[in-house]
Amino acid sequence: MSRNTKHPGGRRPGSSSTRAAILAAARAGFAERGYGGTTIRAVAGAAGVDPALVLHFFGTKDALFAACLKLPPEIVARLPAAFAGDPDTLGERLTRTYLSLWEDPATGPALLAVVRSAVSSQDAAHLLGEFVGSLLLAPTAELGHALGQADAPELRVALASAQLVGVALSRYVVRLEALARADLEVLIAAVAPSVQRYLTGDITR
Amino acid sequence: MSRNTKHPGGRRPGSSSTRAAILAAARAGFAERGYGGTTIRAVAGAAGVDPALVLHFFGTKDALFAACLKLPPEIVARLPAAFAGDPDTLGERLTRTYLSLWEDPATGPALLAVVRSAVSSQDAAHLLGEFVGSLLLAPTAELGHALGQADAPELRVALASAQLVGVALSRYVVRLEALARADLEVLIAAVAPSVQRYLTGDITR
Repeated sequence: MSRNTKHPGGRRPGSSSTRAAILAAARAGFAERGYGGTTIRAVAGAAGVDPALVLHFFGTKDALFAACLKLPPEIVARLPAAFAGDPDTLGERLTRTYLSLWEDPATGPALLAVVRSAVSSQDAAHLLGEFVGSLLLAPTAELGHALGQADAPELRVALASAQLVGVALSRYVVRLEALARADLEVLIAAVAPSVQRYLTGDITR
Repeated sequence: MSRNTKHPGGRRPGSSSTRAAILAAARAGFAERGYGGTTIRAVAGAAGVDPALVLHFFGTKDALFAACLKLPPEIVARLPAAFAGDPDTLGERLTRTYLSLWEDPATGPALLAVVRSAVSSQDAAHLLGEFVGSLLLAPTAELGHALGQADAPELRVALASAQLVGVALSRYVVRLEALARADLEVLIAAVAPSVQRYLTGDITR
């Protein structure tokens, strides 16, 4: 798809059709080569625009991916931000942040839609899982180094995300009665120590 | 609803092999097309019987699905059996039993079919939740009384099941790389303390 960015009398680069073309190219790229194998440059090339224009619309590759999945951009910002603060209460902050995104009427329905479409497609679910992992991996590895416990950050992130996804699916999608009716603070208090242990504790016993 | 149980020249409607053929066709259908995409008519067609015969045996599609959920029977037997033994190592036994059912080629594919159907249908998910809850609730409540910690057995069971389902989904369905490649014993050691705390520990902090 050719996109003349000089656009004499044509569409302006800021037009929604240019944004849509970039999204289409990005979706095709992520689907074909995965998250890690897709670059801003390649997406721009496939959409026939300058890479700067991709960054102008989406800011980062993370945000572009989130837009492809129709993930609320708050997720990209808020989940890693939960790592700021006392490492001993990281589990509580991350659990609270994650569940709050589900509770929030501005982001919850979008998360539900993403998860529902992800569970109907193995590829989408895999991409989504690896993406969420990529959001948490760098701060987890960094924290591990700071705490002198830098083993297996990928496994730690995967365990924490499996725990949080399991709770969210059971409470918001499957609506297991005992979890759906539980008070949010009770739930955070119950789940946070597990997330804490997965991210910073002894997972080998 | 018509219940034509006459069967000139075919298999006897009451035979267990006919019932087994219907169940096998239903399991294949649910696995392939999910709960919503599977009809009584399609199951009957795949089993080579009249739709009325499916209704004769199972009554409704929900009941047919529930019958599929109860298979493999190993699940019904093995999960509650994990409660026998030292209460301090219940988390390890239940995690091992649950993940082993997923690892076992005799039971893993059936579990995958159940979970795929459950995530694509709210009704099926409720059925699955009630089913798992019914398996674990009685022994959890009983253990709680024995340990003098009899609070919120429904929430405990739901938290343990959300944890286990989250790990199974991430490892066997979504196939998050770090979980899919993890050694089973490493995974059991990492997850068991969470399951233990949910079932018998302090979940209120």
